Amino acid sequence: MTQISTKPPSGMRDFLAPDLARRRHVVGIVQRVYESFGFTPLETPTIENLSTLLGKYGPEGDQLLYRLLHRRERLARALEKGSPTELDLADEGLRYDLTVPLARVVANYRTLPAFYKRYQIQPVWRADRPAKGRFREFYQCDVDVTGTRSPLADAEVCGAVAQVLRELGFADFTIHLNHRELLRALVLEAGIARELESTALIALDKLDKIGADGVRDELAQRGIENATAAALLAGLEAAREPAFLAQRAQRDDSPGALAARALSELLELIAAGPAAGRVVFDPTLARGLSYYTGPIFEITVRDLAGSLGGGGRYDDLIGMFLGKQVPAVGFSLGLERILLVMEERQMFPALAFGPQVVLCRFADVPSAAAVRVATLLRGSGLRVEVFPETPALGKQLQYAAGVGASHAAILGAKELAEGVVALKDLRSGEQQSVPLADVAARVGAAR
Amino acid sequence: MTQISTKPPSGMRDFLAPDLARRRHVVGIVQRVYESFGFTPLETPTIENLSTLLGKYGPEGDQLLYRLLHRRERLARALEKGSPTELDLADEGLRYDLTVPLARVVANYRTLPAFYKRYQIQPVWRADRPAKGRFREFYQCDVDVTGTRSPLADAEVCGAVAQVLRELGFADFTIHLNHRELLRALVLEAGIARELESTALIALDKLDKIGADGVRDELAQRGIENATAAALLAGLEAAREPAFLAQRAQRDDSPGALAARALSELLELIAAGPAAGRVVFDPTLARGLSYYTGPIFEITVRDLAGSLGGGGRYDDLIGMFLGKQVPAVGFSLGLERILLVMEERQMFPALAFGPQVVLCRFADVPSAAAVRVATLLRGSGLRVEVFPETPALGKQLQYAAGVGASHAAILGAKELAEGVVALKDLRSGEQQSVPLADVAARVGAAR
Repeated sequence: MTQISTKPPSGMRDFLAPDLARRRHVVGIVQRVYESFGFTPLETPTIENLSTLLGKYGPEGDQLLYRLLHRRERLARALEKGSPTELDLADEGLRYDLTVPLARVVANYRTLPAFYKRYQIQPVWRADRPAKGRFREFYQCDVDVTGTRSPLADAEVCGAVAQVLRELGFADFTIHLNHRELLRALVLEAGIARELESTALIALDKLDKIGADGVRDELAQRGIENATAAALLAGLEAAREPAFLAQRAQRDDSPGALAARALSELLELIAAGPAAGRVVFDPTLARGLSYYTGPIFEITVRDLAGSLGGGGRYDDLIGMFLGKQVPAVGFSLGLERILLVMEERQMFPALAFGPQVVLCRFADVPSAAAVRVATLLRGSGLRVEVFPETPALGKQLQYAAGVGASHAAILGAKELAEGVVALKDLRSGEQQSVPLADVAARVGAAR
Repeated sequence: MTQISTKPPSGMRDFLAPDLARRRHVVGIVQRVYESFGFTPLETPTIENLSTLLGKYGPEGDQLLYRLLHRRERLARALEKGSPTELDLADEGLRYDLTVPLARVVANYRTLPAFYKRYQIQPVWRADRPAKGRFREFYQCDVDVTGTRSPLADAEVCGAVAQVLRELGFADFTIHLNHRELLRALVLEAGIARELESTALIALDKLDKIGADGVRDELAQRGIENATAAALLAGLEAAREPAFLAQRAQRDDSPGALAARALSELLELIAAGPAAGRVVFDPTLARGLSYYTGPIFEITVRDLAGSLGGGGRYDDLIGMFLGKQVPAVGFSLGLERILLVMEERQMFPALAFGPQVVLCRFADVPSAAAVRVATLLRGSGLRVEVFPETPALGKQLQYAAGVGASHAAILGAKELAEGVVALKDLRSGEQQSVPLADVAARVGAAR
C-alpha cells in the first residue's frame, strides 16, 4: 500500500476543535460588533474570473494569485497552440482579498443601498512563501462603506475595528492615520519626481520593518538619490511635530493642505467614537496597495512587528468595474494576527466545546436503550456522546475524561429499570444516582 | 475604460445579507444539533495535494477536480519538457468533498480520540456543468464517527441528521437504508458477473432519476444482458416484501445474510432515536461513491427529486492514508438542497439583520455629535447606522426605511442639547422624544 502524505499542503492548516473554539470566539465578536455599526454581511465566491483580479494589486500581487488550470478540451487547445502562457492555461483564480470582490459586487447589484455598509469575514489565498505566522490561506475581516465621501464613513470603519479590539480585550492598540495626498505632497517637496512617487511609497511602507537606513538603501535601488532620500525622511520626521498638521492645513489650498485639513477633521471624528485616545497622525504611514486615494489607516499593538490590520479610502477602484466613480472606504482586520497575539497574551476565556456527558453502559444494556437515554438527555439541552461499545467501565470512563466531558452518565440494567443514571463528576470523582430529568440541571450546575 | 464582467464566474454565487441570514439560520441549527450529539468541529484547507484527492472518487470525480496551475519556475519547467499533462502542470487541487480530508486528518493526528466524532460544514468545489440548483461551489454538512464498527455509530449519524431536519421544521423526511453487502448478494444472484458489480451499482444508483427502463438500458450499455437486468430488478422488487429482511437474515451465514441481520439491528437502533418512524429499508438504494463497505443511507423529502443528503460506512478509506484499517461511518447533508426546499416551502422564520436604527440629523448637528450618540446607542445593544451626510430629512428617512430599519433616531440641535432623540417608528409613523438611555427599550419593545 503506497503511503500518501497526510499533512496539509505547505502554508495550509487543519483546524481541530480547540483551534475552532478560539477562531469562533473571535469571529463571533467581530461579527456582533460590525453588525452593531449597521454593517450587513456579504460572502463572495472562492473562485473569481482572472479578469476581475488581475491588475488590481500591482505586479507582485498578480504573481501571487492562485490560478485554476483549464480542463479537457480547453486545456488541450491551450497546449496545442505551443508556448502557452499562464493566461492561456487559466482564466479563473482564487480570491486574493475582500476589497476587489466588494468592488465587483457593488458594480453588479444595482439594488444595493446608496451607502452599502458591508462586512465580510472569509479566507483569501496568496501563493506567498510560507513563514512563521504567514500562511497561504488566511482569514480577513473587512468593513467597508461605499457611496459616500463623508469622513463620517472613514470614522465609522475606524470605530468599528477599535470596538472589536476593545471587546476582544486589547487595551493597547493604536490606529495610525495618514493621507495619501499629504504623503504625495511631502514626497514631491523632497524633490522626488512624480513618476517615482509610487515606487517611493513602496519603499517607505517598509520603514517599520527595515528602518530609516533600510529605506534609504531601498530608495537608492529605486533610482532616488541619497540626498533626496534624506530630504524625504527629514521632511517626514519634521511632520511629526505636534503643530505640523494645523500649520499645513492653514497654508494654502494645495492638495497637501486640503489633506491636512481632512486629517484634522477625521482625527476629531474618530476621537468621538470607540477609538478615542487611540488614534495618532503618523506621517510615515504609506500602505503598500496602490488603490488608496485619501486617508489611510493601520492598527498596531505593542510588541507586535507589523499590524493587526489596515485600510483606507479608495475612491477609484469600483469605477474600474462600473465605469463610473463610486467612493469607498474600508478597514481590514487580519484574523490570524489577532489570534496569534491573543494566544501569546493568553487572552481567551474558557471556551466550552465537545460533549458535556459521555453515556457509558454495561454490556447487558441494549444499544437501543442507550440511544433512547441519549435522545432524552439531548432534548434537555445537553451535549451527549454515547460510548459506542461496551468494554470494561474503567476504559469508558477514561475515554470520557479524555474527550473533556465533565460527567459520565453510567447505565446498568438497574438504572435502566429505575429511569435513572449513575452520574459521575469526572473532576471530583463523586457519583450519584440521578433521575434522567434532573441530569441537565446537575451537569449545568457543576460547570 | 474597459468594462470587466461583474458577474461571479459560472456556477458561483455572491451571497448578500438576506441569503446569508437564511444560510446562517440553517447552519446554526445544524451546528447546534451536531454538537448536542457530541460531535466536535473540524475545518480543513481549501487546497489539498492532488495525491490526497486523486483516485478516491472514481474516474468521473478525478475529471471534476479543480487543479491549481504551477507558478514561475515550476510552470516554466513543466512547459519546457513538451507535451505536458495535467499532472505536470498542477499538484494541488480544491477540496472535492469532506470525507477524504477527514480520512487524511485521522491518519495525520495521532492524538485524536479513539472514536473521533467530527462535524464539518464547509464548501466543496466540483467543475461540473452548472444547472438549476447545481453549483460549482456548494456547502456540505458532514458528521462522521471513526474508530468503531459498532452499529450504534451508524445509528447516531442517522439520528443527528434526522434531528437537524426536525429542528429545521421538516415533518416528511425519510431515511432510506440499504447495505452494500446485501446489494452485492442480490446482484450476484441475478447472474451478474463479479467484475461487473461496480458498474451495475452505478447504473442502479440512477433508478429514482431514470426509472426501471432507463436502468435496463444503462445496464445494457454496461454489458449486462436484458434478461439479467430484468432478473436484478425483479429480485430487488421482491426484496421490498416486508418479510424479506427477516427471512434473509435467518437463511445462512453468507455475507448477504449477515448484512440483512446487521440491517435489522440498525433499523431497530435508528428507531430508538430521532429518526423513529422515518426510516425504511430500500433494497434499490445504491449510492454512487465507490468507497462504501456496509450500510448506506439517503434522506429524501416528498416532492424533491434526488436527496437532501446521504452517507454510509466506509471501513477502508482511512487505511488508504494510514496503512492500517480504521472503520468509519458518516452522513452528509447538502446545504443548498435544504435551503432550496425551505425557500419553496416558506419554512424560514422572520430573520433579523441590518440596522435597527438609522441615526439621521439636521445639517447643524456636528458629525462628531452623531458619532457620540451612535456610540452610546450601540453600547445599549442596538444595531445603529449613522446616515453619513445631511440632505433633507425626508431623504434620510426614506433611506432608513429602505435598509429595513424599524426606527429612525433624528437629531437636531434641540435634541442634542436635551440629551434626547426624536425616535420615529418607521412602520407606524409615530414619533416621540426619547432620552438616549431609553431608546433601546423602545426599539426592542416595538420589534
